[in-house]
Amino acid sequence: MTPLPRKVAVIGAGDIGCGWASLCAAAGWPVAIFDANASGLERAATDVPRRARALVALGHATQGIVERGLLELQQGRSLLHAVQDADWVIEAINEDLVAKQRLFHAIEEVAGPEALVTSSSSGIPPTELFARCRRQDRCLVAHPLNPPQLIPLVELVPGAQTTPAMVARAHDYLRALGRMPIVLKKPVPGYVVGRIAAAVWRECIDLVLTGVIAVDDLDRAVSLGPALGWAAAGPHLTYHLAAGDGGVTAFLQQLLASFEGWWGELATWQRLEPEQQRALTHGVERAYKGKLEELREARDRRLSAILRALEQARTA
Amino acid sequence: MTPLPRKVAVIGAGDIGCGWASLCAAAGWPVAIFDANASGLERAATDVPRRARALVALGHATQGIVERGLLELQQGRSLLHAVQDADWVIEAINEDLVAKQRLFHAIEEVAGPEALVTSSSSGIPPTELFARCRRQDRCLVAHPLNPPQLIPLVELVPGAQTTPAMVARAHDYLRALGRMPIVLKKPVPGYVVGRIAAAVWRECIDLVLTGVIAVDDLDRAVSLGPALGWAAAGPHLTYHLAAGDGGVTAFLQQLLASFEGWWGELATWQRLEPEQQRALTHGVERAYKGKLEELREARDRRLSAILRALEQARTA
Repeated sequence: MTPLPRKVAVIGAGDIGCGWASLCAAAGWPVAIFDANASGLERAATDVPRRARALVALGHATQGIVERGLLELQQGRSLLHAVQDADWVIEAINEDLVAKQRLFHAIEEVAGPEALVTSSSSGIPPTELFARCRRQDRCLVAHPLNPPQLIPLVELVPGAQTTPAMVARAHDYLRALGRMPIVLKKPVPGYVVGRIAAAVWRECIDLVLTGVIAVDDLDRAVSLGPALGWAAAGPHLTYHLAAGDGGVTAFLQQLLASFEGWWGELATWQRLEPEQQRALTHGVERAYKGKLEELREARDRRLSAILRALEQARTA
Repeated sequence: MTPLPRKVAVIGAGDIGCGWASLCAAAGWPVAIFDANASGLERAATDVPRRARALVALGHATQGIVERGLLELQQGRSLLHAVQDADWVIEAINEDLVAKQRLFHAIEEVAGPEALVTSSSSGIPPTELFARCRRQDRCLVAHPLNPPQLIPLVELVPGAQTTPAMVARAHDYLRALGRMPIVLKKPVPGYVVGRIAAAVWRECIDLVLTGVIAVDDLDRAVSLGPALGWAAAGPHLTYHLAAGDGGVTAFLQQLLASFEGWWGELATWQRLEPEQQRALTHGVERAYKGKLEELREARDRRLSAILRALEQARTA
């Protein structure tokens, strides 16, 4: 059994960093959060407790432990102060390769020799992320989804030099936080989730920009259609179950020709031109006029209800 | 208000046809199901009641109405017998264009002049489906997902000649069955759902066949990751909420470059070669060794729990 971390350091106080810190605090783990941007760090002082306490209201954490964890929440006065005695250092700054490389180099200067170092990057291969680190054996990607304190999946992407022991430690920490880590067998740009999300979003944007469907109808079509199916079964299992008693073999016999037809029709563009960005932005803003904070709270309520339902279905 | 149909005819007794018939029976509507294949039709005699009664167990229907509906469930002795006095004729045979065209021609010979005719095709444009019909004004696609009695989305795809009144009638019938119809503004091959599913599945197959991830880990990654997010918010809203207070504009500023990088990396092949089909089939069968019926029941339990949770979150 991996011992729990005595302290976690989260570097970056945006949505992802605050999400990580709230998860650790909700587990009662001491956590220090640091951001070079003072106002971002100040926001974390209210945002981390808000997210951690919401986990209690949503039934994902218990109040006593959360309050104990929040008592130990530190705003790092410096990178050194945040990182120096942490067993786990989580990078959660913006998706900027050079800034991340510089940060991992700086972390290496101040972290203890045993510390695990993970990056929240959503798609940069570990070899690039950790290129300036001497100790790449203890570095890997642990990519959460947004919001990190709700969506269980975390993609673990080891680099060529990451030791199995460090992957196992990241895995155990994440399980202790109630996360569901999945280890990639090899690193590819975008990992697994980013590539699938990119495939979905390109086609969704294309269907809107070519006038097939409005933004809100497209979102409803995915939410109340395939997303429900994939949440209950995953794409491969979905098709394994979609052709009676014959499984995936029968599915391929019956429907591969349809899919092959559609594969030839899908959008393949690789850049979203400025006027397309404007049209998309305009469509999204017209579809969702509410305050972002209220839309986000409603989304989190739905997400949390789904998660509770899945837990109950598993134990039923 | 559209009056409820006095009788529905479902042609085709596979998973989709039995799903449609069970939905109608569970609403207490008289429904006749017909299949040219006698053994398929015989299976419907047990499968439709099983699905309809499962809707009661899952909390989606009330027992009294379901049993009343099932009393009126007919196995058509012929296409004529099933269709002749139906207000709504639902085609649900295999995805074979010529067979569908022939069937719609035959339906036209026996259906009443006021009947609505819908196709369950998952991607063939209406102009092709209804090419042999004189009365294309009352024909459109109403594409459900699998299993039709659980997933709420139904894509409505009118053809060039479909009248707005017939689209409205299909919409009202579907709403009365608790479905969530979405009307496409123009028909494209694969409609909306098929194209998005094709984009997802191609990338999922590619990630498995190139050794990035195993079939079951891929399925878990989607189920416990992006599918949860999309079920709670839809792709466009997801990204509108993923960049703090700046909405989709800020998201594009921060992450469009990443997406553009991944778009250039995604699989673009358009055919799944025989040896790839074998490798995929092998991977899926190794990942899911359980009986299909048990896997399907577990999937339906999860799906139903998610649907109930979303209903509660909406009314909360």
